[in-house]
Amino acid sequence: MGTINKPVVGIIGTGAIGGFYGLMLARAGFDVHFLLRSEFSAVAERGLQVDSAVHGPLKLDPVQAYSAAEDMPKCDWLLVGAKTTSNAGLAPSIIAAAKPGAKVLVLQNGLDVEDSLRELLPDSLHLLGGLCLICVHRNGPGLITHQALGAVNVGYHSGPATDDVARMAIVEEGCGLFRTAGIDSQAMPNLHQARWQKLIWNIPYNGLSVLLGAGTTALMADADSRALIQALMAEVVQGAKACGQDVAPGYADFLFTMTEKLPDYWPSMYHDFVHKRPLELEAIYARPLAAAKAAGCELPRIEALYRTLSFIDRRNT
Amino acid sequence: MGTINKPVVGIIGTGAIGGFYGLMLARAGFDVHFLLRSEFSAVAERGLQVDSAVHGPLKLDPVQAYSAAEDMPKCDWLLVGAKTTSNAGLAPSIIAAAKPGAKVLVLQNGLDVEDSLRELLPDSLHLLGGLCLICVHRNGPGLITHQALGAVNVGYHSGPATDDVARMAIVEEGCGLFRTAGIDSQAMPNLHQARWQKLIWNIPYNGLSVLLGAGTTALMADADSRALIQALMAEVVQGAKACGQDVAPGYADFLFTMTEKLPDYWPSMYHDFVHKRPLELEAIYARPLAAAKAAGCELPRIEALYRTLSFIDRRNT
Repeated sequence: MGTINKPVVGIIGTGAIGGFYGLMLARAGFDVHFLLRSEFSAVAERGLQVDSAVHGPLKLDPVQAYSAAEDMPKCDWLLVGAKTTSNAGLAPSIIAAAKPGAKVLVLQNGLDVEDSLRELLPDSLHLLGGLCLICVHRNGPGLITHQALGAVNVGYHSGPATDDVARMAIVEEGCGLFRTAGIDSQAMPNLHQARWQKLIWNIPYNGLSVLLGAGTTALMADADSRALIQALMAEVVQGAKACGQDVAPGYADFLFTMTEKLPDYWPSMYHDFVHKRPLELEAIYARPLAAAKAAGCELPRIEALYRTLSFIDRRNT
Repeated sequence: MGTINKPVVGIIGTGAIGGFYGLMLARAGFDVHFLLRSEFSAVAERGLQVDSAVHGPLKLDPVQAYSAAEDMPKCDWLLVGAKTTSNAGLAPSIIAAAKPGAKVLVLQNGLDVEDSLRELLPDSLHLLGGLCLICVHRNGPGLITHQALGAVNVGYHSGPATDDVARMAIVEEGCGLFRTAGIDSQAMPNLHQARWQKLIWNIPYNGLSVLLGAGTTALMADADSRALIQALMAEVVQGAKACGQDVAPGYADFLFTMTEKLPDYWPSMYHDFVHKRPLELEAIYARPLAAAKAAGCELPRIEALYRTLSFIDRRNT
């Protein structure tokens, strides 16, 4: 586990998620390099700023910012914070910035978001998934607002580590990065199952924030949206079980109750909608629906929500 | 059937539906009296105007307009064109304007919209339901746009006619009024069943027009909204059958195909939403859902749609 001592970290896609965790790791002393597209010059000039309700105002300036992955030093860890809708295009950047045997950690929501990336990466790269339990959003170029929470749970997807012991060592190394930066992080023995569990939150709240133009406070204050959220959550649990992934009893209730205690949070899908970016419908809706259907399980409310969001997305972008 | 010769007709609620049919009856020579609320002075001064794609521009001026039912002559037929959301408040106006033994024809969408009215009317009044297959909307005070179709199908709900022969005679008298005015009208032997059938159109299109901000042209042009409309239609058919009301095979397909041929139509619920009027959710969604549930039948997509509309309605009014 020698590499846990300050490995070189690359951030592929410096949005709210990549920017927040990259900044936290850089402040903890890691050598962090940020790949940016549209925000490159703003961040190169003015740095990265996180207005955090948990940690106070944070600033990273100068930022080791790059507009091309080829210019980055070779990294031990690559954190992928870009949208799932751009995954296919990310592989060349990841390959260009990766040391041999590097670990690629996909910090995205949705089911099996690593699968399409895996096909495009060399076998020598470790691929991991990270589930971020965090309320964070971009407020402008290089400006990030962090409202609450922050944990990252990490699981192994695929790569050269073939036995459980080797996999868990790499997963623990990833968790160690975050913990060193003061961020709670747990190892997940079953990434696919954990992705299903995360969907119990994302499927209702992401979609309804777009469909109803409402943040969590409004959604949790109305009897009908509450009942719909609970029915959608129950369908996700049903889909997970049909696909052989158990969900602990009471876990959906836990997420529901937790959301009541959040500050008013507008999920990433709402921000994507407002900024006319494509919605992450494939990863968050289409893939779980297809997986459940293949297992003989209809999820009618989720399907109806997905259809309405597809209509909205098509008109929006 | 002597009363079919020019009975006195009262219109209770002169919106798009009441205004259109009232004007058509008045032009056919019937003695028609219009009860109005907010639009009374505009209509009394400038008359009623229908811009009809079927019949051309039509005008009725002067209009026999009233702001209070007590001022109206006693009517043989009362056509109720107000929103279902105001039904409870309509009974006193209906009673004030009704001849003994008058026929009250409720021209509204939704399941069993007559039931609540029935409790408030004297037993001596006949209560009928009319289903309007028409694309019509208000464009301003006394201004109505008629885009397509027009038929009114009539069924007996309750009242002094106790046997089928007497009931059908009254229903045919009602159909005769419309036919005299050049409007297609069929007698419906089973009003409850006909109301379920009409919901096959109203449940998908009314709600989705509000939720997606889209008229029929956009809804019929997108693969996802088309699939959702068909799934919602199938649930209505399933609900009707669970409640013992048969639907002819292919009827949902017929409505779907018919809608493709319509001009771009924005259902009444969309106009209610835009004008911040309460949506007719009780009649069109809550009552069919409750009836199906009582018959042991879940309609999850309709329920999800109803929940989102309830949220929207509560914030809108």
